[in-house]
Order: sequence, then structure tokens, then C-alpha cells
Amino acid sequence: MSVTVVGSIAFDAVKTPFGTREKMLGGSAVHFSLAASFFDIVHVVGPVGDDFGEDEYDVLRARGVDTADIEHVAGGQTFFWAGEYGWDFNDRKTLDTQLGVFEGFEPKLSEHSSGADVVFLANIQPDLQRQVRAQCSDARFVALDSMNFWIESAKDSLIETISGVDCILFNDAELKQLTEQPNLVLAARQVREWGPSVIVAKQGEYGAAMITDEGFFGLPAFPLETVIDPTGAGDSFAGGFMGYIAAHPGEALDHDLLRRAMAYGTTLASFNVEAFGVERMTTLTSDEIAERVSDLQRITHFIEKPVALRD
Amino acid sequence: MSVTVVGSIAFDAVKTPFGTREKMLGGSAVHFSLAASFFDIVHVVGPVGDDFGEDEYDVLRARGVDTADIEHVAGGQTFFWAGEYGWDFNDRKTLDTQLGVFEGFEPKLSEHSSGADVVFLANIQPDLQRQVRAQCSDARFVALDSMNFWIESAKDSLIETISGVDCILFNDAELKQLTEQPNLVLAARQVREWGPSVIVAKQGEYGAAMITDEGFFGLPAFPLETVIDPTGAGDSFAGGFMGYIAAHPGEALDHDLLRRAMAYGTTLASFNVEAFGVERMTTLTSDEIAERVSDLQRITHFIEKPVALRD
Repeated sequence: MSVTVVGSIAFDAVKTPFGTREKMLGGSAVHFSLAASFFDIVHVVGPVGDDFGEDEYDVLRARGVDTADIEHVAGGQTFFWAGEYGWDFNDRKTLDTQLGVFEGFEPKLSEHSSGADVVFLANIQPDLQRQVRAQCSDARFVALDSMNFWIESAKDSLIETISGVDCILFNDAELKQLTEQPNLVLAARQVREWGPSVIVAKQGEYGAAMITDEGFFGLPAFPLETVIDPTGAGDSFAGGFMGYIAAHPGEALDHDLLRRAMAYGTTLASFNVEAFGVERMTTLTSDEIAERVSDLQRITHFIEKPVALRD
Repeated sequence: MSVTVVGSIAFDAVKTPFGTREKMLGGSAVHFSLAASFFDIVHVVGPVGDDFGEDEYDVLRARGVDTADIEHVAGGQTFFWAGEYGWDFNDRKTLDTQLGVFEGFEPKLSEHSSGADVVFLANIQPDLQRQVRAQCSDARFVALDSMNFWIESAKDSLIETISGVDCILFNDAELKQLTEQPNLVLAARQVREWGPSVIVAKQGEYGAAMITDEGFFGLPAFPLETVIDPTGAGDSFAGGFMGYIAAHPGEALDHDLLRRAMAYGTTLASFNVEAFGVERMTTLTSDEIAERVSDLQRITHFIEKPVALRD
């Protein structure tokens, strides 16, 4: 079994209160791939330009990611994003976006990629997400992410795309914006009417929540004293979540399994933000992940005990 | 054993997208008292004016709250607050504040109030909080709340007051503002150096977190599809949290007990926001509380299971 992700492969320029990086490997598909690579083979699909070299490929290959479907556009320039964070990491400012080779991108999946068991449609134009979905007709579990830009500029297309997937992984605020509902419970109900059975709301430093027909699950973020760069946290979450599902091909996607997938998503995201870009993911080990998932269970559980209440 | 709270007893005017109330019973000490009244006898301390009548007393007495230390200031007007919420309930606008009898308030505690086992210093001027703390020298557990206004205008006094209590229950953002630290882990470490051993950060619709020397605990808010008026949610949380502690006089304040207290705080807050002002608290029953605490445990737990990770 394997995982396919379609999304941006990028160079990022990032400024946070803790430092600056002028040009580092990034993009939703890259952050996703590295996180998911701890669970299964990942096929990454997306375009790059002439500036994308062996050093960048090596980061992905070192984690066993299949880069055969990275499309090199000769003469082109890799997608570039520049952003800045202040002390409130939930609030980021985009300084520059250069589409480069992403302009005119038409996803073409090899047999390996289109045959994946689990597929993640990272945040790209919803028509393209739908094209990819159509090429992965045998996938067992397909999820997508999007953003305010597409909600505002291509809402009908986005809803059509959403209707063809099993799961959406959205930012909390964007889920409310998409559905025009004031809270998560009502927003998730609306999206489930469109088709997806699993709704995940990412809440940044506060954690994440999930709603399915089995009900609600809420999980705080892992508490960190060192948060250096939140870029890619949501895609790392998705990588851990989808990777965990891919690693359990024979099992029913019930709440027990999906809750554990949430815990791995939360854990991978927490490592991602401890350093700039993908830096932390290149040193991360299985043991560190397993230990943090245990910690996460320990710090989120309480044991109920009856108390005499006064009516 | 019993609980004492000192804070505002108020009339509130509130406008939310779901309706308007021109003058309803409110105030931090009132919301706290009603929530804590499910666990133990509550002594409420604070001033009221001539406009505070039997209807208001009856709301408190119906829940068994001891109102003997409510100080009636003849010729005075009860504290008044007017505020408005938009769709984002984490963001509220204060339209009017009239101190009324709160101007010149000097807390005088009867023997019953000063002898309480558990004491909550709700959000009032920090010098007054310290006076109350001094009168409750035998209390087993004392907690306080505050707000940005005091952090900005009376920070030294506030820190001195904090150094004399066991626990602070602060909004997330105000905890960071107070300590000038970028995240909860570092902020809590700073406050613990000042004295308190239990740090609780209230995160509004996202839940609450606690840090003690036994570590971190995070708990999502209870998911609701009907949120009518968030006024008093923080004080209801405090009431459930402190009430639960008061109801366990012989037990060590270890993490197991404090986590359960967090669950009761979360639960009481979730009921409070389901209707305007104190309306929901006047119909709430023990059975409803117990059922929701069970639900809260169910929707926040996951069971770890090892997975083969790929290094």
C-alpha cells in the first residue's frame, strides 16, 4: 500500500521572531511527504523548475519518498512563497507568491501514484484536485485541504471537489468561512451533507478536532516551549494523519483508528514547528515519534470519578 | 467545607447575533457562585446597589448560595457592564462600564466567608484581591483571575497578589501578556516562579490547559451547536473547577484530581454559554452535569497502539 500527495513543491522565504531563511525547501506536498514517509511509501506529484536540484531531491529520497512523479519543467522556476510571522503564530502575513511552474500545471499521475491506497489533495486549485481525484479511482481514502483564496474565488468548484472525497482537513476558520456556520458542529454537519464522512478542523496552537458519524473527537496540540516556524504544520499534520491510515490497510476506518491517526498528525505537526522549514523532519526518528504519541495520550486523558452534586 | 468568591455582582446588557438582553443578572462572582453551588456551599462577597432586589437574591438562594456577605450600599447603583459579540465569540466589545457601588468597595468578610476552605478571587483590582487573601489565611486552595486592564495598569500589584495564591485561572492571551512569553509552557514557568503551583489557561471555544509540577494537561471545550452568550463562561469554568476541589477536602491536589476539576470546569462553562446570562444555570441539573462530564471523557480519549514506523 502507499500514499500519493499532489500539491506544491516550493522554495520558501520565512521570517519569524526567531530568525530568517531566504530560500529553503517547502511546499505543502513536501511537508506532507516527509511526515507521511514515517508510515508508508509516499509518491509526491507536483512541478519544479530548473532551480530545484539534487540537494532538494535528496531530502525527499533520504526519507524514501518516491520522486518519480515530480515534473521538471525545463526553463521554469519553482513555486516561491515568502511570509512573515509575528509573536502570534496563528496570524501570518504573505509577502510574496510566485507561481512559476505551477502556472499551467496539469497533474499527470504514473501508475504507481494513481494506484495509491490513500491520496491527499493538498491546497491547490480545486479543478486540479478533481482531476487528480478522477485519476485515483481505486483509492480507499481521499482527503483534501484548501484555503480562503479558493473559498472566495472558486467556491462552486471547491464544493464539487469536496463532494468527491472522503475527508477534508481544513483550518478551523476556513471551515466556518466555507460553510458560513458559526461553529464547528454546524460547519461539519454542512460538509457531511456534501459528501465527506470525516471532517477535521485544524486549530493551530490549540490542536485539532474531528467529526464523523461516530461523533466528535478533540485533541489539544502538543505543548512546546520552542516553536520556531509554523510553516507546514498543517501539511505535516495531514501527513501523519493520512500516513497512519495508509499503514492500516486492512482495518476499518472507525473512530478508534481515526483518533490514533489524529494523534500521529498532531505529533508530526509538533515536530515540524520546532525548526525552520523541513529541518526538523530530516533528523526526526521513529523513537521520538512513538515517545511523543505516548506523552500526548498521557497529557490529554482524565479519569472520571463520580462526585455527589447538589441539585 | 465551603467556597468563598469575591468579585463583581452586576447587571449586564448583552447583544449577540442571537438576541439582546437590556439588564440581566451577571458579574463574575454570580457566574462563579452558581457553577460552584453544584459542589458545595458558596459564600459570595461583593457590593450591590438599591437596584439589586429580591428577584436577584432569589436566583442565588435557589441554588443554596450564602448571600449574607453581599453588601448593600444604600443609595448606590449596582455595577453595570454592556457588551456586544459578533460571530467570533472570542472577540467581544465592551460598550459601557459603570462601576457604581464598586467604587470605594472594601471587602469585609464574615467568619463564614473568611473560614472557607477554597477561595476564588475573581477579576477585581489586585490590591482588593490581596486584602481578601489576607482575611482567608486558613484557606487550603486560593485561586485568582484578572484581566488585561490590571496587567496594563497595576502589573506590580497584580504580580504581588499572584505570589500569594496557589493557582491562577487566566485567559490564554492574558497569560502571555502578563509574562511577555510567546507560549503557554514558558508563560506558566514564569508564573510558577512567582509562587502559584497550578496554572490554568482558558482558551475560549478551544478549551483549557493546565500546568503544574506534575506536567501539562490539555482539554478541548465541549462541542456545542448552540452557543448563545459566552458572558461568564470563564467564571463558570472557575466555579466548576474550584467547586470540584472544595468537594474533595481530604484529598491531595494531585494531577488526577485537578484534571477532573478541569473537566467539571469545562462542563459548567459549556452549559453557561447555552443561554443568556445565568438563565441556563437556573435550570441545570446534577444529572445533566454528570452526563456531560462522561461525554467529555469519551470525546477526548484515544487509545494508543504501536505502529511500525519507517526510520
